[in-house]
Amino acid sequence: MRAFFDPRSVLLVGVPRATGVGAYNGLEMLLRYGYRGKIFVVHPEATEILGHPVHRRVADLPEVPELAVISLGRDRVLPAVKECLDRGLKRFVVISQGFGDADERGRELQAELVAQVRAAGARLVGPNTMGSLNSFVGFTTAFVDLSRPAHPPPLTLVAQSGAPQVGSESFTGPLGQALDLGNAADVSFAEVLEYLEGDPLTRVIALHMEGLPEGRRFLQVASRVGRKKPIVVLKTGRSAAGARAALSHTGSLVGEDQVFSAAFARAGVLRARDTTDFKDTLRALVKLPPLQGPRLGIATPSGALGIIALDALEAAGLEAGPLPEAVRRAVEPLGPYWHRLGNPVDLWPIGMKTGDYLLAAKETVQGFLAADEIDGVLCMLPALASPLHANIVRPREFIAELDLPRFGKPLVLCLYGDGRDHVMQELAEVPGVACYVAVERAVRALARLAAWERLRRQPPEEFPLPAAAGAADPRILLGQGALEYLSRQGLPVAPGRLAATPREAVAAARELGFPVVLKAVSPALVHKWEAGAVLLGLTDPEAVEAGWATLWPRAREAAGGQDPQGILVQKQLSGREVLLGIKRDATFGPVVVCGLGGIYTEVLADTAQTLAPVTETQARELLTSLRASALLTGVRGEPGVDLEALARMLAALSRLAVAEPGLAEADLNPVLATPHGCWAVDARLVWRPR
Amino acid sequence: MRAFFDPRSVLLVGVPRATGVGAYNGLEMLLRYGYRGKIFVVHPEATEILGHPVHRRVADLPEVPELAVISLGRDRVLPAVKECLDRGLKRFVVISQGFGDADERGRELQAELVAQVRAAGARLVGPNTMGSLNSFVGFTTAFVDLSRPAHPPPLTLVAQSGAPQVGSESFTGPLGQALDLGNAADVSFAEVLEYLEGDPLTRVIALHMEGLPEGRRFLQVASRVGRKKPIVVLKTGRSAAGARAALSHTGSLVGEDQVFSAAFARAGVLRARDTTDFKDTLRALVKLPPLQGPRLGIATPSGALGIIALDALEAAGLEAGPLPEAVRRAVEPLGPYWHRLGNPVDLWPIGMKTGDYLLAAKETVQGFLAADEIDGVLCMLPALASPLHANIVRPREFIAELDLPRFGKPLVLCLYGDGRDHVMQELAEVPGVACYVAVERAVRALARLAAWERLRRQPPEEFPLPAAAGAADPRILLGQGALEYLSRQGLPVAPGRLAATPREAVAAARELGFPVVLKAVSPALVHKWEAGAVLLGLTDPEAVEAGWATLWPRAREAAGGQDPQGILVQKQLSGREVLLGIKRDATFGPVVVCGLGGIYTEVLADTAQTLAPVTETQARELLTSLRASALLTGVRGEPGVDLEALARMLAALSRLAVAEPGLAEADLNPVLATPHGCWAVDARLVWRPR
Repeated sequence: MRAFFDPRSVLLVGVPRATGVGAYNGLEMLLRYGYRGKIFVVHPEATEILGHPVHRRVADLPEVPELAVISLGRDRVLPAVKECLDRGLKRFVVISQGFGDADERGRELQAELVAQVRAAGARLVGPNTMGSLNSFVGFTTAFVDLSRPAHPPPLTLVAQSGAPQVGSESFTGPLGQALDLGNAADVSFAEVLEYLEGDPLTRVIALHMEGLPEGRRFLQVASRVGRKKPIVVLKTGRSAAGARAALSHTGSLVGEDQVFSAAFARAGVLRARDTTDFKDTLRALVKLPPLQGPRLGIATPSGALGIIALDALEAAGLEAGPLPEAVRRAVEPLGPYWHRLGNPVDLWPIGMKTGDYLLAAKETVQGFLAADEIDGVLCMLPALASPLHANIVRPREFIAELDLPRFGKPLVLCLYGDGRDHVMQELAEVPGVACYVAVERAVRALARLAAWERLRRQPPEEFPLPAAAGAADPRILLGQGALEYLSRQGLPVAPGRLAATPREAVAAARELGFPVVLKAVSPALVHKWEAGAVLLGLTDPEAVEAGWATLWPRAREAAGGQDPQGILVQKQLSGREVLLGIKRDATFGPVVVCGLGGIYTEVLADTAQTLAPVTETQARELLTSLRASALLTGVRGEPGVDLEALARMLAALSRLAVAEPGLAEADLNPVLATPHGCWAVDARLVWRPR
Repeated sequence: MRAFFDPRSVLLVGVPRATGVGAYNGLEMLLRYGYRGKIFVVHPEATEILGHPVHRRVADLPEVPELAVISLGRDRVLPAVKECLDRGLKRFVVISQGFGDADERGRELQAELVAQVRAAGARLVGPNTMGSLNSFVGFTTAFVDLSRPAHPPPLTLVAQSGAPQVGSESFTGPLGQALDLGNAADVSFAEVLEYLEGDPLTRVIALHMEGLPEGRRFLQVASRVGRKKPIVVLKTGRSAAGARAALSHTGSLVGEDQVFSAAFARAGVLRARDTTDFKDTLRALVKLPPLQGPRLGIATPSGALGIIALDALEAAGLEAGPLPEAVRRAVEPLGPYWHRLGNPVDLWPIGMKTGDYLLAAKETVQGFLAADEIDGVLCMLPALASPLHANIVRPREFIAELDLPRFGKPLVLCLYGDGRDHVMQELAEVPGVACYVAVERAVRALARLAAWERLRRQPPEEFPLPAAAGAADPRILLGQGALEYLSRQGLPVAPGRLAATPREAVAAARELGFPVVLKAVSPALVHKWEAGAVLLGLTDPEAVEAGWATLWPRAREAAGGQDPQGILVQKQLSGREVLLGIKRDATFGPVVVCGLGGIYTEVLADTAQTLAPVTETQARELLTSLRASALLTGVRGEPGVDLEALARMLAALSRLAVAEPGLAEADLNPVLATPHGCWAVDARLVWRPR
């Protein structure tokens, strides 16, 4: 992997002879970027480009470069790669488009390319990529002229597009290193993460992701690496249209968006909600020390901005801490006698009285930073371009006087006014302080710091890979058959017997104890209730016999004339109806789902899901994350259900999902949850061959 | 009002002698800003300031200036205003702080100030204000040195803070005019809106609002003005902490945040969700022609950004239109043979093949703009600072070649890369195109344009002012008494009789028809159900007598030994339980609330509210806006309720709320909604004197 980020020598194939405006000449860009390794260029006709010697054929190269960068038309890529492999090259960046990102022929070419490379024990980034960037050593494979940061930050981007590299100002802020995986045909996110784990030049990791072929492998690595170095992901293709476009853009597999969110949360990966949040979060993580708690000190030149900050704090789950006594003692004497101090501290009346706004700001910010009851500081600062206000716009001096390293707490400045860009530039590389241009963005960035601090302390998870599924036949189990299967797997199910005759039904009812429920069992009746194929509250043998006589013809009619397989006699239980289930996500495999059945699931879409397996603690968290979870924990004087038993059942189901890879879907619906135990009352299980 | 925005002469009281850095000298700022009207300055000691002659006393002024600007310490404000009133001045901007924004003494001073000014038939902006700004004529009352836009835009800001004026780059973009109402002690938002309605220099109105003393008066004006000129509001104090701070910042009244949202929606005012949205929305409205529909054409240099755009479109309620045939014909021949065209159009492969990225971009954007099936265009553009990419960064030429006025559709550019600030500046004043720096922000701004187009077409509403309440005693009506009151007001209620004895109860049940319900009536039992004071399903006289015997002692016990007033006998109805109610908002007065009772209201907080009165159509919209509204319209094969009758009932209740100003609260809970009609079954009504 090192050769992709920091090659000692590089071969360029496909560089045009033309240079300058509009030529997109990779050699020109590499030279301008300041690379000091060896550069080899192969071109069939030119003898030199930009004064650089050129070889006619790869076979002519005097040595084997560490990395080849191919930017030929798609039909010429495979022959060129073959030549390189023959010469012993092992690492490739294929810039060219028109592969998995294009048509059927492109997909075939991509598969051939990967097969060829892998057969030779070589590795490939791309195709359809801008490749790699290393501003520490001045290396780039881009065909765009990028500006190189004077002091590269410890931020590495792994993306599926060149746009965030080209527009790092818009997407990530200055980059130390970057790798565009493009179609991610060979080298994967997980492999790059493993490399970055040990890379001393990487302290923060940014991911731009469209799809993920090996979901669980990624989570295994991310869960480990993300405890040491924060990982922030911009996962796109959230919407239906976006997911379709993502599929065609890089041909990667795209799973369900909610499952991505659940998976990232479990692995300790911070998911950005949009490109602005991505950039803002990265800036906070690169520039600031940890935020150890939610209590902020706020300094504002305007009551109005203080109010906006308080609104943003509440939305972000942070709070204004108490006003430290030391701040009061230092600042109160400076202001007018009628000025009321609080947190936020309104600095303007003080600045107007003393004529020295920054003195009041400094006393306040330092007092907050020093106070045990404050975890971080938000300071809003007017940044005015006019020379008349030079006294309040001295950012470097202001920060130097604060002596931030002494406190080890984050300071966020929110700048406004026509001098804000100037101030932001002045402070861009000053550690310990991060600048934002909107109050809500500044607050959200602080909330992200707090979130990372919480994630970092979570123990990493395992994310076991499900066993490979055998090529079993597709199979569906319904009703009693499904319940018996679940019971054998150790899951609690409602006692019941499948009866073939009225006499068997009565015997079963006597054995189970009245009252009982009768349910017609037929593969053609998925929604028994709607089909009228369920009878409740049968309290004696006569009622069971009468029920049989009613139910059988009704079920046959609803099933289009097909006789039921039998009638299930169940002990009637009463409790809260819950739905527990398993499904398979295209990216992450087995997922568990829970909900409150009926109306809550169908009308209110109040369900929650996460990757299987879950511990009992995680299962309980999932259940109580439901909007209507008060129905489980107890409401309006009614007792709650046996949440421990329900969590135990969900955890057991989640382990089954991992252990039985062929079990594609399970719907335990309803599960009756009572104050003392819970039982699956009906179920539908689907196995699918893979 | 004109004198506040465009005074022909102005008096400054409280200007310091000091000038330059740190002096905050209002005269200096006014001169620098380029004001050409007459300026008078009163100062007790100075003879000149900045070479400008100074008068010792207001009485000495040779003429009566149109506007006085007072920036003295709070204790010197009232005497100075008195001097001005004596000299005949009628318009005041009081900059000084320390009034309603400070302590009890400040609130008293503010009340005296307003009384004094009003008694003289004069008007006041502030106190605690930065006052007014008019960049067309170079007038400002600010004590901060602001940069004056060369070409003032038709955007006027009315705020409760000087920060958005000082930091217009951060909050609104360049301002044509602005007025900071500060504590809004006299001049109100509604009055300023009325003035701006006829102001030819105002085409778009921005409001920064913390509180609103005359909520309905504001809505009456906004509803009319907002149909002609878009009004965008940043309402702060959303959170509990923010609302408390807003109250102390300007002392304005702060109502419930959700009611503000409902009120703005009804009045056709666009509410910004944060400061970034505020600025982005204003830019779109100031710079772009209308967006007549949701179908966008999208041009992108990168598949990745196209995916991000599609995600943002779906979140914002917009869509990618079909790819117009004309675009396909123009662009397809330019690209590589394997390139698949769609919407978004991925331009990069074309630009790489032709070497002329902007040609492909121009053909695409123009094709979209010309197509009937496209309402507006989003074009993402790399903006690179390197001279090597000068060929793709020619914003003025690019826009000129597009010939935008020909199409009358909005074009939004999303810029990324290290040259984006340069391009934004280049295009800042070019009409018909608006630039953004994040895809999601660009898309949201377009969605705001579409929202304004929908609002503009709604008929304006009336917002009747509730009649003044008499000073009646506080009074509570419960149970049958409340139902009888509602019935007299024309609202449908469940048939019932209040019985004092078991015999009366049996007689009532015979008259109403079995089955019946018994409910103990006692002021001490608000939650009858929890208290066990309700019996259902009594099918004969014996059951009624037995029920009485059970219910009476139980109710007495639950009421702490107090006998019930009687027992209500009601015809038992079955249907969906709905809650309808009235409450009074501190800002906007009568509000109607609806919800689905029980669990849905208490656990899921699934309620909706809007200002009273509502039409039957608006009532139906409110009911169907509930998350669980499928329970009303029909779900799982169950029939829906009589939505027409329910909407009629809610509309009638809303009219009652306006007609009966003393009726502070009404809870009709439950209302039983059946497929054929709906009836209030229990109610609680509270009158409060004002």
